Amino acid sequence: MKIGFIGLGIMGRPMALNLVKAGFQVKAFDLSTDARKILTEAGAEAAVSPREAATGTDIIITMLPNAAIVKDVLFGENGVADAASEGAIVVDMSSVSPVDSLQCAERLKERGVRFIDAPVSGGEPKAIDGTLAIMAGGDESAFAEVRPTFEAMGSEVTHVGGIGSGSTTKLANQILVNVTIAAMSEAVVLASKAGVDIGKMYEAIRGGLAGSAVLDAKIPMVLERNFEPGGRIDINMKDLTNVYNAARELGTPMPLTSQVLEMFHSLKANGHATDDHSGLIQYYEKLANYEVPKGGK
Amino acid sequence: MKIGFIGLGIMGRPMALNLVKAGFQVKAFDLSTDARKILTEAGAEAAVSPREAATGTDIIITMLPNAAIVKDVLFGENGVADAASEGAIVVDMSSVSPVDSLQCAERLKERGVRFIDAPVSGGEPKAIDGTLAIMAGGDESAFAEVRPTFEAMGSEVTHVGGIGSGSTTKLANQILVNVTIAAMSEAVVLASKAGVDIGKMYEAIRGGLAGSAVLDAKIPMVLERNFEPGGRIDINMKDLTNVYNAARELGTPMPLTSQVLEMFHSLKANGHATDDHSGLIQYYEKLANYEVPKGGK
Repeated sequence: MKIGFIGLGIMGRPMALNLVKAGFQVKAFDLSTDARKILTEAGAEAAVSPREAATGTDIIITMLPNAAIVKDVLFGENGVADAASEGAIVVDMSSVSPVDSLQCAERLKERGVRFIDAPVSGGEPKAIDGTLAIMAGGDESAFAEVRPTFEAMGSEVTHVGGIGSGSTTKLANQILVNVTIAAMSEAVVLASKAGVDIGKMYEAIRGGLAGSAVLDAKIPMVLERNFEPGGRIDINMKDLTNVYNAARELGTPMPLTSQVLEMFHSLKANGHATDDHSGLIQYYEKLANYEVPKGGK
Repeated sequence: MKIGFIGLGIMGRPMALNLVKAGFQVKAFDLSTDARKILTEAGAEAAVSPREAATGTDIIITMLPNAAIVKDVLFGENGVADAASEGAIVVDMSSVSPVDSLQCAERLKERGVRFIDAPVSGGEPKAIDGTLAIMAGGDESAFAEVRPTFEAMGSEVTHVGGIGSGSTTKLANQILVNVTIAAMSEAVVLASKAGVDIGKMYEAIRGGLAGSAVLDAKIPMVLERNFEPGGRIDINMKDLTNVYNAARELGTPMPLTSQVLEMFHSLKANGHATDDHSGLIQYYEKLANYEVPKGGK
């Protein structure tokens, strides 16, 4: 099976490398020649355009920053759609709105090209280890054909439903992650200002119903005052903006997510756009005129 | 060590029974004679008033519905304060505001009686099993004296700080639990209305950063449309009201918690006060004019 891979950034590069390691023939494209070089040195073939990456490949994977770039790569000049063979499958692993996924699928269908939306969760470390969670939407048979490539990049691969379901599931994931970070911030600033030792508080509650992966990952960052990403605020803003737009399209309420998005906008205006999203606590600290002490007490 | 135990409700009864089983001499009081009878049949002594439960006991534990009742039991007619020996320790395991805990401690101190606030988390099943999480605030030496009784009732016992810290930690716990339930509701209603199979979505995201004890406990309830408590909305409303009041006192912002409290008020007005707090999803469903199908698809 021959694979075109477009987008060799922080996430795409290790994902493409894992495909090469697993024995797939990979034709890789990125605007950066350095990124392409890393892939060719590992045994991949370099493509000079999205069109070339799609030429003669069975599966074309895209891992790109946002929907506008995905659409440009698919449908722009020298794009994938010009070259993809009938029966090929485009797999968009970027995080975009389900509305975008459906539009891409529609336009590709006109050319006999199938589509799967398969965003990931887990970040750079899991991309490197090949242990990403992959949530895929699309046709059952197309999913079955693509599954071996997913298994080279991820350890939890779930087919969640039809086209757009992967993107929707990723949005649901981002709602949960970011609203839980905000809940943590409300709880920590309250308790710390009341004099509670936050490390001990975390010990006391982590095993119960308040426990979460967010607490386990982010409380240590708060205690160290280390807001190096991790998951950047500006990238999470993109996801929550997609949530907001999808919710408006569907007619579902987003009272908490929309507030968290506002908080991120405020942090961006204060120079925190590239902090880890656990840096959200700084919004609460500013409003409370109080900073949680390093070490938590 | 002789223990007075006041408040033999859903939580207090199994907690007092576990003290008896562990070999403590227990003098138990509740307004309900039936509740008292269950304790005497297990080997406890019955008291006819809070005052009597506090007479000749070293530790007096209260497990009561709210702060007003705690204060009445401690300082009202035939109350604990009239009879507690100098050097005795009152341990309030109810969920109240840290402001209330500090007030109780202050008034008891005048009479030479020590105080620990030690609310619990885990609900009735863990109260029965003796595996509650207990988060205690107060003096180190008083905590050390009380610790053996905590270990008869709970499996995770943490001394989180000075007086009021236990109550504050419980409030932080309730912020995290209820805001996460709201985040889950936003995510589930959005994804379900977009056509995603919620059971598969849960599988896809539970192992990642979006995973939490709330998802593990409450997604199955949503899929079964079973909102039997569990943790009742009206009880969680009391806790979030305490959060709100404590936050106003401390000057910390509660943008998400205050909204979740509003949602609970709306659910109460619609007859859902005694639903499990996972029933919060019904608020979102009403606004979205959409109900998540039983089974999730």
